[in-house]
Amino acid sequence: MLETVRWLDGKVRILDQSRLPQTESYLEISAFPALIDSIKELKVRGAPALGIAGAYGVCLGLAEEQHRSIADFKLSATEAVTQLCATRPTAVNLGTGAKHVLKTVLESEGKSSDAFCKALKSADDFLEDDLSRCAAISKLGAPLMPSDGSVLTHCNTGGLATGGIGTALGVIIEAHKNNPRLHVYVDETRPLLQGARLTTWELARAGVKHTLITDSAAGHVMAAKKVKCVIVGADRIAANGDTANKVGTYGLAVLCEKHRIPFYVAAPFTTVDLGTSCGEEIIIEERSMSELSDRFSTSPVPIGTEVYNPAFDVTPASLITAIITERGISKGPTFNFA
Amino acid sequence: MLETVRWLDGKVRILDQSRLPQTESYLEISAFPALIDSIKELKVRGAPALGIAGAYGVCLGLAEEQHRSIADFKLSATEAVTQLCATRPTAVNLGTGAKHVLKTVLESEGKSSDAFCKALKSADDFLEDDLSRCAAISKLGAPLMPSDGSVLTHCNTGGLATGGIGTALGVIIEAHKNNPRLHVYVDETRPLLQGARLTTWELARAGVKHTLITDSAAGHVMAAKKVKCVIVGADRIAANGDTANKVGTYGLAVLCEKHRIPFYVAAPFTTVDLGTSCGEEIIIEERSMSELSDRFSTSPVPIGTEVYNPAFDVTPASLITAIITERGISKGPTFNFA
Repeated sequence: MLETVRWLDGKVRILDQSRLPQTESYLEISAFPALIDSIKELKVRGAPALGIAGAYGVCLGLAEEQHRSIADFKLSATEAVTQLCATRPTAVNLGTGAKHVLKTVLESEGKSSDAFCKALKSADDFLEDDLSRCAAISKLGAPLMPSDGSVLTHCNTGGLATGGIGTALGVIIEAHKNNPRLHVYVDETRPLLQGARLTTWELARAGVKHTLITDSAAGHVMAAKKVKCVIVGADRIAANGDTANKVGTYGLAVLCEKHRIPFYVAAPFTTVDLGTSCGEEIIIEERSMSELSDRFSTSPVPIGTEVYNPAFDVTPASLITAIITERGISKGPTFNFA
Repeated sequence: MLETVRWLDGKVRILDQSRLPQTESYLEISAFPALIDSIKELKVRGAPALGIAGAYGVCLGLAEEQHRSIADFKLSATEAVTQLCATRPTAVNLGTGAKHVLKTVLESEGKSSDAFCKALKSADDFLEDDLSRCAAISKLGAPLMPSDGSVLTHCNTGGLATGGIGTALGVIIEAHKNNPRLHVYVDETRPLLQGARLTTWELARAGVKHTLITDSAAGHVMAAKKVKCVIVGADRIAANGDTANKVGTYGLAVLCEKHRIPFYVAAPFTTVDLGTSCGEEIIIEERSMSELSDRFSTSPVPIGTEVYNPAFDVTPASLITAIITERGISKGPTFNFA
């Protein structure tokens, strides 16, 4: 099991995903602003893992506040949650994790140091719950995978993106235990290449055969009948099932509809945002234009070029065959999580 | 006008596109094998430009053969054409240009040096014809473009890809003369980033406003109703209108169908391969796996990862609103070029 986000001796310890696959190194973060930066810079990423980072992030923000009155301590917790939620607007789990710990703090009475211990316990519980949620999602989803042939996935939804085995990638890895011939097409996932860098790395560790393609090649492999289903994670699921996920997901869902290939979403129920009725209400994070040019030895983009870099897109519920959460499999084409 | 491929003092002079947008430099190629390499390495690329490179390529292959008998000279021409055609299997124009010159050689009698002069003249004519074809395509296609708002294009189809103003990009640039508010979304076009590197560079030179996006973001901008039509070039068009073009084109066409957005193909009639009845017969070039990792300061791809890198895909005729050639606009959904 990858230890993507953990609490260790008063620090938040994260596996620095920005350095993978070359280097497996860990950051021990002792200051709240540094954690905020590491989230912005995607050193920790993936909706469920962000939930855990949010939960421990609140603890980190409170570690130095234990000498304050319980009222001030609660105020600090609220401020930490606000700051954390603002770092990545689309992924709902970040706020879910942070608010899970905030609730514990707000319910606490007595000494701030006792409230801090309770906060830490609730963050640990959130991590444990994520582990269980991933295991449940993977077991529930595995029978939906083909017994042989290929599935296609986008971005990274494995242990690196969660506290446990993963969501969509967890389903694939679980299915592979019974179907060793299962093969995965991995979209490279521009601009940050989470597929090329992280999903390939996780699949190699798990011994699952896989082939890397450009995002643009997905249509070609589907037209060649090489893909039996597509499975992805989610960053926010509206009450009606509309799903925000890594940009490019929507195009895959349209291709699946065209080719009559099942399109599955796997995510913990914490990804469902009952406060959002449909996809149109989901705020899509726009990220830096430098993400399209920075990783190269020489920038491919002429200086001064305008760039539009949405990090996510929304897949309407009507294109989703089923959404797999730890609570069960909801079959489309309509969903009602409210 | 860009001088993408020219014959100059017994050499083939090409604008080295692999160094753009940083450096505008020219290669003067005096040896046939070096020209073959420059085609393989995409220093010259784009279906119509490859046609011109093919035409001058035959001349280059024959330059040292002028002392031979006319029979041997013709044999050398045939061998040069065979070698040229094998370098890029999907783009039909390469062969068209090469065979155009071959025909002249095979029809020649008398001295080889005279046949060489005729060959060179026929290559010059092929370039001139491409210039005219581009101008005609651009003028014919321009009225199909919206008067304002955005069009989306993929890969590079401008002066860099042709002998003239371009095909799809020529249409856009021509339309922009009358519609200065026309704006272009440019797909970066992985893996070789012809959109990010070349199309942005050409549009900036032409003063056309444009925004670079990842290939995966095309669905999102279409869903947000930001795109009024998509226009692309072609590497080979079968007799029934099925069109091979840069990988990712097919996915765009499917998205256009979903969003009821016109999907246009602009290409010289030399791109139509009457010997190919439908898309299934088109050979799709597979290129090196290193194209997915080489351009980066550190390779994002774990060592040993299997990569599938088709350079093209096929868009079925049924998804194409119209095909614009210099001979006119053929409206879909069915085409019969035979």
